[in-house]
Amino acid sequence: MIDLHFAATPNGWKITIMLEECGLPYAVKPVNIGAGEQFRPAFLAISPNNRIPAIVDHDLPGGGAPVSVFETGAILLYLAEKTGRFLPTDLRGRTMVTEWLMWQMAGLGPMLGQNGHFRLYAPERLPYAMDRYAREADRLYGVLDRQLARTGAYVAGADYSIADIACFPWIITHKAQGIDMAAFPHVARWFASVRQRPAVKAGTAVGRMARPEEITAEAKRVMMGIRNDATERDGE
Amino acid sequence: MIDLHFAATPNGWKITIMLEECGLPYAVKPVNIGAGEQFRPAFLAISPNNRIPAIVDHDLPGGGAPVSVFETGAILLYLAEKTGRFLPTDLRGRTMVTEWLMWQMAGLGPMLGQNGHFRLYAPERLPYAMDRYAREADRLYGVLDRQLARTGAYVAGADYSIADIACFPWIITHKAQGIDMAAFPHVARWFASVRQRPAVKAGTAVGRMARPEEITAEAKRVMMGIRNDATERDGE
Repeated sequence: MIDLHFAATPNGWKITIMLEECGLPYAVKPVNIGAGEQFRPAFLAISPNNRIPAIVDHDLPGGGAPVSVFETGAILLYLAEKTGRFLPTDLRGRTMVTEWLMWQMAGLGPMLGQNGHFRLYAPERLPYAMDRYAREADRLYGVLDRQLARTGAYVAGADYSIADIACFPWIITHKAQGIDMAAFPHVARWFASVRQRPAVKAGTAVGRMARPEEITAEAKRVMMGIRNDATERDGE
Repeated sequence: MIDLHFAATPNGWKITIMLEECGLPYAVKPVNIGAGEQFRPAFLAISPNNRIPAIVDHDLPGGGAPVSVFETGAILLYLAEKTGRFLPTDLRGRTMVTEWLMWQMAGLGPMLGQNGHFRLYAPERLPYAMDRYAREADRLYGVLDRQLARTGAYVAGADYSIADIACFPWIITHKAQGIDMAAFPHVARWFASVRQRPAVKAGTAVGRMARPEEITAEAKRVMMGIRNDATERDGE
């Protein structure tokens, strides 16, 4: 069994989607980030960066003590290696996936997080910062659109991979991010296709159904990758 | 032979350090990011995100066409897998390294990039944004300090790994980032130790020696991870 320390955010949904895609049993352990539960010492031991999601796997291949993993990119790699799914084993194919996984982790996630912050949350309206991150968000959508035009299929090539799973939950936020999807037809085509996957539907439903009363008040902020403090990175 | 498309920035130095550590022969292909060379179509084919560094490896294990790799995290994983160096092969040990590699890629790099931008480059002085990223930079140094206290050695544990190689060039910028190293004694201890490695000295000398006349004018900006446009992410 895998314990998933979770909140209903784009980064949280990366992992519920992956667990659903792999058919791995998991127990959701909600972390109320609004109440600061991510700062509890017990959580810090699992996630030293004080961010959700994190997992604890009690069934490590090869046995031994449970393993905890933080950072969504590392969790996706871990689950892919554990199951042999959604990540090629040959170095060439594997590298095509890790490139785009890293691009999501280092670019799309953090920069959409900043865009959401200055668009929707920052208590001051700062046109310079808003423009800076709106342009970067647009640029990143352009990079993804050209890549999806090239592959004609998925983010890292012909096959669905952890690169798609990493990118998809952030693209859910496109309206609130101020993105005009009509300008990115290949992203729109890919998004419409991936969202039909049963595991994607199941993964993104986690958290939404569990606390429907919070959605109206908090979910828009959460889905935008913004949080009620100044240190959020990308909506974790 | 590996072609390294390079500029003298923290992200560029991640890869020169790794290549030096592995003893792999490489040819530096300077990319003048100030002159916009990263937007040339030939470079875009190698690096679809228009960022340096990127590599082209003409000696892929198993043969076949040359492989190009962008995103420093993916390049480090590629070179580690190619050589069997600086990344454990067992899933547990490997995951300890990928966690911290992802933490650098998704947190330390992008957020120090924003801190450098608003501290040193942004044409307007925006106290809200400056404070936001200064606090996040400080928080990230605290996370790294606690981790290095825990390991007593390197970022991901007892052994030097690609997690150290990813973090080190960004820590070089600590003074310009406004970080008080005295507050982070474990980072200071680790930084002093890693900088003594011959491969780290050789790697971080690349680009500095090649164009010494540019150092005084441009190097401070470059070392801060800032660039002369509004779309830089983390100093690439």
